[in-house]
Amino acid sequence: MKVLLIGASGIIGKGVDAELSPRHEIIRASRNSGDVNVDLKDKASIRAMFEKVGAVDAVVSTTGKVHFGDFADMDEDKYRIGIDDKLFGQINLVLIGRDYVADRASFTLTTGILAKDPIEFGSSASMVNGAIEGFVKSAAIEMKPGHRINAVSPGVITEAMEGYAPYFRGHDPVPAARAALGYAKSVEGLQTGQVFEIF
Amino acid sequence: MKVLLIGASGIIGKGVDAELSPRHEIIRASRNSGDVNVDLKDKASIRAMFEKVGAVDAVVSTTGKVHFGDFADMDEDKYRIGIDDKLFGQINLVLIGRDYVADRASFTLTTGILAKDPIEFGSSASMVNGAIEGFVKSAAIEMKPGHRINAVSPGVITEAMEGYAPYFRGHDPVPAARAALGYAKSVEGLQTGQVFEIF
Repeated sequence: MKVLLIGASGIIGKGVDAELSPRHEIIRASRNSGDVNVDLKDKASIRAMFEKVGAVDAVVSTTGKVHFGDFADMDEDKYRIGIDDKLFGQINLVLIGRDYVADRASFTLTTGILAKDPIEFGSSASMVNGAIEGFVKSAAIEMKPGHRINAVSPGVITEAMEGYAPYFRGHDPVPAARAALGYAKSVEGLQTGQVFEIF
Repeated sequence: MKVLLIGASGIIGKGVDAELSPRHEIIRASRNSGDVNVDLKDKASIRAMFEKVGAVDAVVSTTGKVHFGDFADMDEDKYRIGIDDKLFGQINLVLIGRDYVADRASFTLTTGILAKDPIEFGSSASMVNGAIEGFVKSAAIEMKPGHRINAVSPGVITEAMEGYAPYFRGHDPVPAARAALGYAKSVEGLQTGQVFEIF
């Protein structure tokens, strides 16, 4: 399969790359490195990426930013950072990509444990992840027949614990290599409309 | 209790009014009718409402618009209708209202069955409802101690079936009076961070 991996330079992206590259051709996309550059906040950039890579069999996104902050200080603008980036970046990847991908292609987006298991400072992540999960479940039933979409919901990633540990006390960190299995299940399996929880 | 009911003129709002008014003082808010007018898309309007009603014990929102449409025709602007209205209307109600309400006040927002049980044309509703549920779960643990927040997730409402039936085939409609029980549980109970599913 030809797999377009967005966020290839990130911790989860590298795990997905290691898991899938022995069996598939990986086209690595990142903002500033890899085989093709893309900024998911820019629809023209997404379109240019698909024009360049052609009809891939799988689109995997392991990227998306949200604002972490004390709920007392959160306002609409801070919540919109994640809406504009992690939510609409990934949604636009699907809405634009669906016209370029192969007939039996899959899309795999990234949500996360905070949708279900909230932490201090994480209310925007919880909100955005909930939105991604709702989108995936509903888009799946209305997509062009043959197309599939799933999300992977990883727990906090072991390799990121150096910075994140104080915020994720009590969480059982997930090695990127284990989170990557969720992406493999989505890309190489046949399920659709699922949230694969890896935590 | 003094209950501020936003969306009081709607089908669910009237059900909540009938359920709570025998036991509580209801301040009815709608865009164009009721005791106080509010447009949740306008933060100044939300602020003016709370200035007028003072420290209420419960804020209930039964309102929020999303765009229904074929997934093939959905684009970012259409998804943003629900983000701006049903999601940020209700979030801003909480973010602004928290500075005005009583010390032990509750907020009760409205999500809906489509977060879990999607229908054709409903992908924006599923997305927005997922976001509301993630927000409620996470905001609950970070709110000022004493404050509470829940969401009610009603199924399709019996009284709305005349227009909605073709889109909700196989759904078991919920009378507004039964949906109203979820709001009563949130307002009059002590739970927080919950999504009360009435379907």
